[in-house]
Amino acid sequence: MPSHSAPLPATDPPPLRRVTVLSGGVGGARFLQGLLHGLRSGLVPGGSADTEVTVVANTADDWWIHGLKVCPDLDTVMYTLGDGIDVDRGWGRRDETWSAKTELEAYGVEPTWFGLGDRDIATHLVRTQMLEAGFTLSQVTEALCRRWQPGVRLLPMSDDRVETHIAVADPDSPSGRRVVHFQEYWVRLRAEVAAESVLVVGQEAATPAPGVLEAIAETDLVVLPPSNPVVSVGTILGVPGLRDAVRTTSAPVVGLSPIVGGTHVRGMAAQVLASIGVEVSAAAVGAHYGARSAGGVLDAWLVDERDADQLSRLEDAGLRARAVPLMMTDHDATARMAAAAVDLVASGRR
Amino acid sequence: MPSHSAPLPATDPPPLRRVTVLSGGVGGARFLQGLLHGLRSGLVPGGSADTEVTVVANTADDWWIHGLKVCPDLDTVMYTLGDGIDVDRGWGRRDETWSAKTELEAYGVEPTWFGLGDRDIATHLVRTQMLEAGFTLSQVTEALCRRWQPGVRLLPMSDDRVETHIAVADPDSPSGRRVVHFQEYWVRLRAEVAAESVLVVGQEAATPAPGVLEAIAETDLVVLPPSNPVVSVGTILGVPGLRDAVRTTSAPVVGLSPIVGGTHVRGMAAQVLASIGVEVSAAAVGAHYGARSAGGVLDAWLVDERDADQLSRLEDAGLRARAVPLMMTDHDATARMAAAAVDLVASGRR
Repeated sequence: MPSHSAPLPATDPPPLRRVTVLSGGVGGARFLQGLLHGLRSGLVPGGSADTEVTVVANTADDWWIHGLKVCPDLDTVMYTLGDGIDVDRGWGRRDETWSAKTELEAYGVEPTWFGLGDRDIATHLVRTQMLEAGFTLSQVTEALCRRWQPGVRLLPMSDDRVETHIAVADPDSPSGRRVVHFQEYWVRLRAEVAAESVLVVGQEAATPAPGVLEAIAETDLVVLPPSNPVVSVGTILGVPGLRDAVRTTSAPVVGLSPIVGGTHVRGMAAQVLASIGVEVSAAAVGAHYGARSAGGVLDAWLVDERDADQLSRLEDAGLRARAVPLMMTDHDATARMAAAAVDLVASGRR
Repeated sequence: MPSHSAPLPATDPPPLRRVTVLSGGVGGARFLQGLLHGLRSGLVPGGSADTEVTVVANTADDWWIHGLKVCPDLDTVMYTLGDGIDVDRGWGRRDETWSAKTELEAYGVEPTWFGLGDRDIATHLVRTQMLEAGFTLSQVTEALCRRWQPGVRLLPMSDDRVETHIAVADPDSPSGRRVVHFQEYWVRLRAEVAAESVLVVGQEAATPAPGVLEAIAETDLVVLPPSNPVVSVGTILGVPGLRDAVRTTSAPVVGLSPIVGGTHVRGMAAQVLASIGVEVSAAAVGAHYGARSAGGVLDAWLVDERDADQLSRLEDAGLRARAVPLMMTDHDATARMAAAAVDLVASGRR
């Protein structure tokens, strides 16, 4: 075995001591599972079981329901990495029961279209009580993670209340439109109505949660996983100071396209991209994030092999780009995506 | 059929248009079930399906747990009369699940000895959210009863926070004693430790809930069911103004002994009676309530047939007393108890 105190050969990948990921819910959580698997198994160049992963999670999907503070993206990451997730649904707890939901419906309490599972309610009870006792969302998240041991440092993007609302056409309204909370758009309307615009309430006044800016400044790599570029990664980057931190970190920044073959793999990126006038393509999303050399947030952008014809367009926008398989079919496939992302930015240094 | 506008024969019982019951939890709820059965079936003299029953329920067992406002006695009455109770346990919901409890334990959240069922949690979520929105406990209770249709008007004794605490011996404490919430005494300690004293926090500052004094003043009969004379009926009577209302109502006041054969039928009356220096006997509890003619709250007191030897002692205390079977083995048996109570006060008028 080579001695680790000896100088590394020039061809060895630089060690990845710290990785920071800006994550939404289901897609981000699955990517993180694959990333951790890739780091621990050696699939990811330079990574190891000691690589510290910090996750800055979107909190703009959060809301209060039945008096409980619910944080879907934080919980999806926590449950997924802590092996408590319902794998088939992709959200919520495994072996969940729905007694309280049935009862709330029997009481006629609105909204009935958003169901809280009984196991999940325990998480929200702990969170709500801690928040009402004066703890911050960061502190609450840390406390909840003591049980789940997700293997990452999980940070909310902000401890302040930031909420995504979506304007939709509504012929019954005098103004012809209606503004609904993100959860209503996604869960009740199933994103089947066109999103006219995205309004992120409270975003201008929000500040990044403790540790977020440092995690971006002091990392070896920033990754934008294949999360929604508007209502997940977009709302994270929209917290004042956060986009600048990504722009100015000395670490490389690499992203993975959530758009494959002209539409999202899951979720509703197509709908919200349309609302902000961005074409629903891997290249357009890469260009929307933009190259850091041109005032954007990315150095490199991975697209699916089906979108290989868009590479030159990305390179024209100043991005290092590569086409690889981007379907997270299992942990190995996802780990290879993470490895390809690391390799793509490393190749820029060689 | 006789015309109802014709004068009633002198031997007919006076009509019972309104009955007001001061109730604790399980024992009170079972008595109320039998009372309603007796009124509807004609077993109770003068009663009918139109007799309006008002329940003034003890709220001194209430507490906040996991951020939820829990009202055990109100809920036991509501679930029992609304046919949602777990009949075997006597409290909580039928077909209950315990997922949230399991999860709260996994989070290590104290207290773990007080379990909230998932169905039950829905009730507490609705209540807590309404209270936090500014509704009173009376308004919340009325809203919850819209679903349960208990067949009675259910009033909390007070909308103010009143909480029973119990002082117990604790050799590990510098003072040699420790004060625990009623729920901790009952659920965690199972009332197996001697109660040194009963402290009802907030009682002096409480006011009766809207409608309570009127329900006592304008009724045809006040009933003290076989609930705990200290921590159920005692805390109701302890709300300022309430004891005076019972003393001065023009309606007769009759009670049923919770002590049968020298101990309680269920619950922990023996322990708390000892703490206030009252002998654990049917006669002593009747004398503790006292005759209205001597400044107490009772006109008549029913004891179990096993305690027939105590009747003369009760009569000496100024109470009309009778011994009948007092075991609530089924609705018919309980209805006969209610009938005996009505008959006992009616006999005083003949």
